[in-house]
Amino acid sequence: MGALEEGHFNVKLEKSSGGGCAELSLEEQQPDTVAIEDAVKVLLQGLDEDVNREGLKKTPLRVAKALREGTRGYGQKVKDIVQGALFPEAGLDAGVGCAGGAGGLVVVRDLDLFSYCESCLLPFQVKCHVGYAPSGQRVVGLSKLSRVADVFAKRLQDPQRLAEEVCSALQQGIKPAGVAVVLQCLHINFPKLESFFLDPNHQGWVKVVVSSGSGVFEDKEADVWVDFLGLLKFRGIDAEKSCTTDFAECWCPSRPSSSDKISKLGSAHPDMATAVTSILKSLGEDPARKELIGTPSRFVKWLMNFKNANLEMKLNGFVCGRPDFSTPNGDSNHDEGQINSELSFSFWSLCEHHLLPFHGVVHIGYFSAGVHPIGRALLQSLVHFHGFKLQVQERLTRQIAESVSSVLGEDVMVVVEANHTCMISRGIEKFGSSTATIAALGRFSTDPIARAKFLQCIPSTMTSGG
Amino acid sequence: MGALEEGHFNVKLEKSSGGGCAELSLEEQQPDTVAIEDAVKVLLQGLDEDVNREGLKKTPLRVAKALREGTRGYGQKVKDIVQGALFPEAGLDAGVGCAGGAGGLVVVRDLDLFSYCESCLLPFQVKCHVGYAPSGQRVVGLSKLSRVADVFAKRLQDPQRLAEEVCSALQQGIKPAGVAVVLQCLHINFPKLESFFLDPNHQGWVKVVVSSGSGVFEDKEADVWVDFLGLLKFRGIDAEKSCTTDFAECWCPSRPSSSDKISKLGSAHPDMATAVTSILKSLGEDPARKELIGTPSRFVKWLMNFKNANLEMKLNGFVCGRPDFSTPNGDSNHDEGQINSELSFSFWSLCEHHLLPFHGVVHIGYFSAGVHPIGRALLQSLVHFHGFKLQVQERLTRQIAESVSSVLGEDVMVVVEANHTCMISRGIEKFGSSTATIAALGRFSTDPIARAKFLQCIPSTMTSGG
Repeated sequence: MGALEEGHFNVKLEKSSGGGCAELSLEEQQPDTVAIEDAVKVLLQGLDEDVNREGLKKTPLRVAKALREGTRGYGQKVKDIVQGALFPEAGLDAGVGCAGGAGGLVVVRDLDLFSYCESCLLPFQVKCHVGYAPSGQRVVGLSKLSRVADVFAKRLQDPQRLAEEVCSALQQGIKPAGVAVVLQCLHINFPKLESFFLDPNHQGWVKVVVSSGSGVFEDKEADVWVDFLGLLKFRGIDAEKSCTTDFAECWCPSRPSSSDKISKLGSAHPDMATAVTSILKSLGEDPARKELIGTPSRFVKWLMNFKNANLEMKLNGFVCGRPDFSTPNGDSNHDEGQINSELSFSFWSLCEHHLLPFHGVVHIGYFSAGVHPIGRALLQSLVHFHGFKLQVQERLTRQIAESVSSVLGEDVMVVVEANHTCMISRGIEKFGSSTATIAALGRFSTDPIARAKFLQCIPSTMTSGG
Repeated sequence: MGALEEGHFNVKLEKSSGGGCAELSLEEQQPDTVAIEDAVKVLLQGLDEDVNREGLKKTPLRVAKALREGTRGYGQKVKDIVQGALFPEAGLDAGVGCAGGAGGLVVVRDLDLFSYCESCLLPFQVKCHVGYAPSGQRVVGLSKLSRVADVFAKRLQDPQRLAEEVCSALQQGIKPAGVAVVLQCLHINFPKLESFFLDPNHQGWVKVVVSSGSGVFEDKEADVWVDFLGLLKFRGIDAEKSCTTDFAECWCPSRPSSSDKISKLGSAHPDMATAVTSILKSLGEDPARKELIGTPSRFVKWLMNFKNANLEMKLNGFVCGRPDFSTPNGDSNHDEGQINSELSFSFWSLCEHHLLPFHGVVHIGYFSAGVHPIGRALLQSLVHFHGFKLQVQERLTRQIAESVSSVLGEDVMVVVEANHTCMISRGIEKFGSSTATIAALGRFSTDPIARAKFLQCIPSTMTSGG
């Protein structure tokens, strides 16, 4: 289909017969979308949220659209993409060598993809590297390798299966001598709410490298793999240690260890689990598929981390037990003070507009005169507390600043740096982008030199995520 | 419009009343698309190309769709994007500080955008950084900053104007205390055909940093700019030296120096210039707009660099004048030879499927026994010669290998690494991706250890473009 060959948009929308502005209402009318919206309302109510408050009013629709966009691969066919993009291209005579349309390896590296984890419904990021050895004096348009990979990324996935599906689809679609796929995957790993104070060794990401090969690449020991990996290596991609075994248990952090019973999970919230199951159905999935059986329970269990009441309780308990947690000695005359900074607290949160994770670091600046220093653990708890609810980054920044101000005095500055999943999904695909927000209280709000001094303390973060 | 608010696709396609597969035929029927196709045929004929050969048959349609996708911003309205994405968000009481929906600076960094240069119709890449200071207790959904920037990037542009249009559209759409925009732009800079042998000091890119501010950011000396630039700095973005003057003359390399007369340009190919003018019209532009007056001539002049016959002639002249350019002493017994490598020749080419530039480096390996070393200048010329025509990377790789083989013996390996504009435009948006192709002749095709040794010589290229 030409739409897929050259465009980048939701296939189902093409079926619209309305005018240029019909998309919103069209989405609203689609029975699948409405079903997802209803399910999302159940989830929000399960979190004790007011589904009619301004920030959440359109969240069910936004979530429905994000999910449909993120799983539009179910409606796409590889044949339609590759068809018409196969070009005759001369090779060399047999015996002379491999080049062009006869054996000359073609590799596309560093395709940024985005997928939903079939085990927990959280997104994961993929760096996809695809190679193939042309045969039959023909090559495929380079962008088709990206488009085909995207068809399978835009489904509920597991890294190894994704690699295999892309590989086998390209093998069938192009019929080359062989296809190789290497994926570097990054799954967000929320800290467990049970260990409310962040484990200092908590790893925010689970990383795996997987690969799949067909044709001449079927044998992982084949020489063509050395060529392919060699071409990846000088982009800094070390895929030698790719894991190809069934590692689902070690990949998704929500996956129960083998001793756990799936049935135990989330049985406390049957309505919410049913709602998630109906979402899976609306997306075109079979909730009875083996890999999806525990998914609704896992998603609900994770989502319940963001229930406000849970946290209020926990924080109250925490606050009472800590004598340090009080406004320090009432001295508000910090004119002589020096700027102190506490940098790079990690935070985890859930975007209330799309129910998608955002996460990053928080930097806190304050004037030290008259304020006895408080431990990083306390500040980390404050940050964590405000992160674990439905949020927007602007509010998170303000709330942290207000809380910190009650501990460290009125002259406080907070910078939050974050990567938002909603900036890479939903067709926005801004993989390298990051956001920053500032709250400046007291002297920081009126003294640009103080702000500049604090900003200069913040360490450079050149890489996004991971 | 909801379509723009949440989706990412060609607006005009929504007007389709056909089924899911209607896009290709729809495009074919659209009068604008047909007009662009006809114009592209004129351009291909002007290059003495056979518009019916397999690789070019669908090029007019592909170019038409790429151009329409790349300029779809003309059909989009900022109001439609921002509407419904403004959220109430508490700030702080006046006097206490700036945070959340009242003055707490919000910055989105590293948005990758793609635009067409209005002076020459070649694409340029943009890293866009946007900030705003909320007011009136409301904030905008973060992704809208990206969507609005994209509306203006998807037009024929000039960096400074792009910055100003994004800034002013956000100011009007969000009505915050102020908006700041910083753009880092990268324009491909083809070497001049007149100096066929690459100037070793030729810079492949023209880079500029521009900025624009409104409201509290209107004064470039204002303290808020220090905050904003501080937040960019720890992402490694140094925008202090942004240029805000009218630098069009120094930005687009196709722009004539002030002494040149525009009318002199391309008057040799009036049919082709007329075809480009008709493309501008079909895209919804006014070809009489001051900045576009010389554009058709500049584009045609650049395009004519890729006319095959020109180059044949030049290379012939070149070959005759160089005694080195011959098969070296007929010794084909290289068994004892050692692998030599000549790395990182730059090349410039034009993708024949989309008439979009691709460029990168070529690495050449050969066995040295019995072959007297030849100069890098000769190899660079060969690479340059095969680059300057309508190409696909697979063919370029094979042709370079064959040519080099006639000079350096039958055991030759060539690796071409490239960035393809067609992988970042046309809705594909794979900004970080790069391609690699291999041709292995003679011993390299049969000896994987020789291939591996050569691949190990190739220097790591971690960054794409620029």
